[in-house]
Amino acid sequence: MQTVNPYEVKGDIDYNKLIADFGLKPLTKETLERLDNLAKGSNYMIRRGIYFAERDLNWLFDQYEQGNRFYVYTGIAPSGGMTIAQTMQFQMAKWLQDRFGAEVLIMIPDEEKFLVKRNPAFTLDNGHKLAMEDALDVAALGFDSRKTQIFLDTEYAKTMYKQAVRVSKYITSSIIKDAFGFGNDMNIGALFYTSFQAVPAFLKSVQAEKNIPCLIPMGVDQDVHFRVARNAISKLGYYKPASLVSKFMPGLSMNPKMSASDPNDTIYLSDDEATVVKKVNKAITGQQATMELQKKHGGNPDNCAVCQYYKYMFEPDDKKLNAIFEGERNGSLLAGEHKKDLAMRINKFLKEHREAKKKLEKKLDEFMLHD
Amino acid sequence: MQTVNPYEVKGDIDYNKLIADFGLKPLTKETLERLDNLAKGSNYMIRRGIYFAERDLNWLFDQYEQGNRFYVYTGIAPSGGMTIAQTMQFQMAKWLQDRFGAEVLIMIPDEEKFLVKRNPAFTLDNGHKLAMEDALDVAALGFDSRKTQIFLDTEYAKTMYKQAVRVSKYITSSIIKDAFGFGNDMNIGALFYTSFQAVPAFLKSVQAEKNIPCLIPMGVDQDVHFRVARNAISKLGYYKPASLVSKFMPGLSMNPKMSASDPNDTIYLSDDEATVVKKVNKAITGQQATMELQKKHGGNPDNCAVCQYYKYMFEPDDKKLNAIFEGERNGSLLAGEHKKDLAMRINKFLKEHREAKKKLEKKLDEFMLHD
Repeated sequence: MQTVNPYEVKGDIDYNKLIADFGLKPLTKETLERLDNLAKGSNYMIRRGIYFAERDLNWLFDQYEQGNRFYVYTGIAPSGGMTIAQTMQFQMAKWLQDRFGAEVLIMIPDEEKFLVKRNPAFTLDNGHKLAMEDALDVAALGFDSRKTQIFLDTEYAKTMYKQAVRVSKYITSSIIKDAFGFGNDMNIGALFYTSFQAVPAFLKSVQAEKNIPCLIPMGVDQDVHFRVARNAISKLGYYKPASLVSKFMPGLSMNPKMSASDPNDTIYLSDDEATVVKKVNKAITGQQATMELQKKHGGNPDNCAVCQYYKYMFEPDDKKLNAIFEGERNGSLLAGEHKKDLAMRINKFLKEHREAKKKLEKKLDEFMLHD
Repeated sequence: MQTVNPYEVKGDIDYNKLIADFGLKPLTKETLERLDNLAKGSNYMIRRGIYFAERDLNWLFDQYEQGNRFYVYTGIAPSGGMTIAQTMQFQMAKWLQDRFGAEVLIMIPDEEKFLVKRNPAFTLDNGHKLAMEDALDVAALGFDSRKTQIFLDTEYAKTMYKQAVRVSKYITSSIIKDAFGFGNDMNIGALFYTSFQAVPAFLKSVQAEKNIPCLIPMGVDQDVHFRVARNAISKLGYYKPASLVSKFMPGLSMNPKMSASDPNDTIYLSDDEATVVKKVNKAITGQQATMELQKKHGGNPDNCAVCQYYKYMFEPDDKKLNAIFEGERNGSLLAGEHKKDLAMRINKFLKEHREAKKKLEKKLDEFMLHD
């Protein structure tokens, strides 16, 4: 049994089964080639199958070829410090911005965790504070401020509520309850929330008063919101959003999905150098119990957090990644050096990120939308 | 069987049963006397039992006596032209403003009918247009612009959504479904809507950063929103709102509740003089079938729309009202003259209202709140 939705990821994850269950399309070789051609280059996360599924991507390419450019929509629900795994969708969004000149619209739902989580630590005020921190983290990932807009739900609610009401009319409570596995005791704000998350998928069409295609890079746990909202969006007369759907970056302990709420499973963008070294040293590797056994039998990169982090984020060169995986398999790569190098790369990324944040601190307003 | 909620009023209405079913308090002689003393005067609608029930009114008076003044919250859901029956709550709100110096906060939920009604004529754009018309009608009922604020939900949503989210957290979907009789196919916007209607009952406390008592004059069909929201409001740390609950003004055809959507049952504020005369002429009276029978047996004022309209709105003098009722009962009052006089009074009220609207047209902004 696997459970995969925005509020719970449980069990071993069978991504092929998710494709079937959710009605996604696998990302085929033909689609990849078409993307590479249009993008005039290839993205390592797509190439490596980290993005493994899609909706309406070929339709989106048709539109693009006809001169109907798309915008990109993605987001993050503040939960207390952004993790490196949570940068994935933004790195993809930035790549799409760089390659397609796409506008990027980023939603930070500062009310979502308050509504859905039972933990009283998730207050609305705290959600707002964390959301502002996330906004700076997101902006610092390299977006072009002239083409990127970030908003918090509570700050943009005058614009959002009206459109959320329009979508909500076509989404029944039983559909939401079934889709998310909510019980009768789930609150009405959590039920309504999907309407909010749906809005940015057609908001630019509302504002432009003409249909503009939208592409949503997302983790597969988010698909349910749009699966539910697609018909409603279509009934309002807007294009259904296309999507590019990713697997989860595993946790340091090889949790199938890095948990933002477990500091030992996670590297936060705010972690200092020593913390990163310490955390990476404790990471699960696919190596054998002793150095002798590892040299003799080799390890399994698929069960190795270190190898996976290279694959997901820290070694964009395929040849070098293959060498790392091969070294893990044939036993020539030892855990200590392996981890030391990864920690160094993560710290390099975090240092650059800290510097980018510092530069943006006073300029964040250039990115922010509010009513 | 009776059904009484904001979206359906069905069956003969037993107001005593509603008091029991809804957990309201009957408006007792002691409470009335206390109100008269504090108000330094008596309100004919309360005196006559048109307002028949309450919640926490004596608590509100305690607060008032301790110098903790209350504000008044009421509203109207735009449905296409305000009716004379729909002025009731505003006339009560104005009386409370005049007598207690109360601030009045008026919500016009321009999204409500769109969300709840299946009739495709209720679009969101149309709701907005009708809401602006309602706003002018309401303001023209004599409110003091320095103490009265009117808003449309979609125009004030940045302020409202955040607070609605807070309340919604404590209202489950099953409570809403049971309370309103919604099926599984009801949309999530309609379920969430109660959170919006709850907000003005504590919004002034939020804004003042201290608890301010709130009194809501309302038709008994609206009680369910607050019945459901009271606990949630209390859990947020605010006072539960007090309420003053009215019966329904009957329709011209003696429907238990004047239907805003049936032009033949209703007098709109926009009806011209000839239309009023024609409609009143067709009104149901409690009189006998022929003039001879009426003179002999008399009629029943409780079954007479004309008598009821005097009682609800057009004869504030109790002695004169008693004379009208007595004339109906003893057969000395004949339908023709009876109706002619009522039509004249209604037309006088409507003429003054038209003039007040004209004066306010350019000044409506003084009343309006928006983000």
